[in-house]
Amino acid sequence: MSIRIGIYGYGNLGRGVEAAIRQNEDLTLAAVFTRRDPATLKIRTKGVPVVHIDKAAEMADRIDVMILCGGSATDLPVQTPAMAALFHVVDSFDNHSKIPEHFARVDAAARTSGKVAMISVGWDPGLFSLARLMGNAVLPDGKDYTFWGKGVSQGHSDAIRRIEGVLDAKQYTVPVEAALEAVRAGKDPTLATREKHTRECFVVAAEGADRARIEHEIKTMPAYFADYDTTVHFISAEELKEKHSGIPHGGFVIRSGKTGLDLEHRHIVEYRLKLDSNPEFTSSVLVAYARAAYRLAAEGACGCKTVLDVPPAYLSPKSGEELRRTLL
Amino acid sequence: MSIRIGIYGYGNLGRGVEAAIRQNEDLTLAAVFTRRDPATLKIRTKGVPVVHIDKAAEMADRIDVMILCGGSATDLPVQTPAMAALFHVVDSFDNHSKIPEHFARVDAAARTSGKVAMISVGWDPGLFSLARLMGNAVLPDGKDYTFWGKGVSQGHSDAIRRIEGVLDAKQYTVPVEAALEAVRAGKDPTLATREKHTRECFVVAAEGADRARIEHEIKTMPAYFADYDTTVHFISAEELKEKHSGIPHGGFVIRSGKTGLDLEHRHIVEYRLKLDSNPEFTSSVLVAYARAAYRLAAEGACGCKTVLDVPPAYLSPKSGEELRRTLL
Repeated sequence: MSIRIGIYGYGNLGRGVEAAIRQNEDLTLAAVFTRRDPATLKIRTKGVPVVHIDKAAEMADRIDVMILCGGSATDLPVQTPAMAALFHVVDSFDNHSKIPEHFARVDAAARTSGKVAMISVGWDPGLFSLARLMGNAVLPDGKDYTFWGKGVSQGHSDAIRRIEGVLDAKQYTVPVEAALEAVRAGKDPTLATREKHTRECFVVAAEGADRARIEHEIKTMPAYFADYDTTVHFISAEELKEKHSGIPHGGFVIRSGKTGLDLEHRHIVEYRLKLDSNPEFTSSVLVAYARAAYRLAAEGACGCKTVLDVPPAYLSPKSGEELRRTLL
Repeated sequence: MSIRIGIYGYGNLGRGVEAAIRQNEDLTLAAVFTRRDPATLKIRTKGVPVVHIDKAAEMADRIDVMILCGGSATDLPVQTPAMAALFHVVDSFDNHSKIPEHFARVDAAARTSGKVAMISVGWDPGLFSLARLMGNAVLPDGKDYTFWGKGVSQGHSDAIRRIEGVLDAKQYTVPVEAALEAVRAGKDPTLATREKHTRECFVVAAEGADRARIEHEIKTMPAYFADYDTTVHFISAEELKEKHSGIPHGGFVIRSGKTGLDLEHRHIVEYRLKLDSNPEFTSSVLVAYARAAYRLAAEGACGCKTVLDVPPAYLSPKSGEELRRTLL
């Protein structure tokens, strides 16, 4: 029997979930929910209803797990608790500092409804969190390092676009290779913000705009760029479209730790992602955890869960017996 | 309250567990079990009893989790089911092809006794298995690659030592860098055995032994060396001791997969270990899973489990709330 998935919100992430469902035979796309007029939304899977979000409750018996594809700033804090009252849900809430608050709200809703609600699923938070946890559990004496990139930061790109005279922009976060190598070599460096990542900006300026001023405004922007070594390239709109329209990302989680009676042995655990499409990879993680949420629910679980709570075998469509025989 | 750990077998792995317990405040070493005369065994933790394995049953109320530190060939197939009748247990059974058989035997014993028995804990099987599972679950369309090394293979070193005229030897398994790079670059290569790893041997020959014959016997040894590009270095016993007495190991698990409606986006997930001491790292993993076994048991679980069945949070001494706040 197939697990019936609902997609709530049809942006990059929602489209990624739609594509990922096709890669998993045990999952079926049951409906796409949108706040737009459903008649105007063209999805890429034939025969699947597009439903207005106001009518989600009417679909309660036709959806097993609802995957929430909204943003963390304003959508998910409202949508996840609301939908957890009706469905098992999975979201990708990624505002790290507000996770405890989001967890509490979603947990209350899911306990009341008896549903399973998985939050903060994706790669960071998500798979990177798992890598950090495993590294810490296995090597209690050690240091954690997380590097991001090379990849597109939507927030930083948006910040550049708000500068006067900027028509469009794309910002890449780039890990500093020398820092990575020092960590891998077991040197346990203490790294300032500037030493971990650089920022590379591709900017389309309006005709006649003062490029020196734009570059200065970018490089001195507090929080976003001031603490980093930033490079600014002015390019044409055509070049931006041609060379920088992808949404790649990735990064590294490294645990450098020691064991032995005198802590005489060093171990390096490294987890690395290199992603052509950040939203599609995130969607693929969401889909695997939707399967897990369904299974946890089938066992009688309820309440808010994170990736840290899920037995890994629940992510796979294969049986425990098959996994032990082929993957263990 | 501290979790009381028993160590069953005091070789490299047992000593590693002893050291690892000191790095975890919530764990206490309760006893070391040996098949030698306990009076002759000197352990490195003061005030901890050394007990003959025949008296293990008498310690049933003083041990929460028994960590089995014997070998996979002959010890664990007997010891793990036997001890699972008395204790929650963790072992590092690493004979991949016999895991289903071992699982069945241990599961029967643990279900009868109501204990939790974690098998095949370590890094391969173990953390590498988790990396393979996660990679497959998130990227169903893709290829798996596991590379081992650079590290010491005990089995291959032993095979060389059995050759006439060889006094001592150490064999390193080395991943082929070009193969790794092709995988990382998303080329999905099909790799023959010879293209994935090379074997490097450091051999101490007896005086007057025929080195050409020894080298030939090594390089043509079926299963062990014949399918690999093998290098043989003859060195002195002193040099072997000085430069090759460590037990380093490690390796790489890579999942190369695609997403998108037309599978147009490539993603590379890489998990890498670089270990100064293979037994100490394995011991550190065993200890973290002993904690998890204890927690699963406290929840009422019983039977045989593997790393694939354990919620990651159970590996950490921290609370769910603290993990969400600091690591997620």
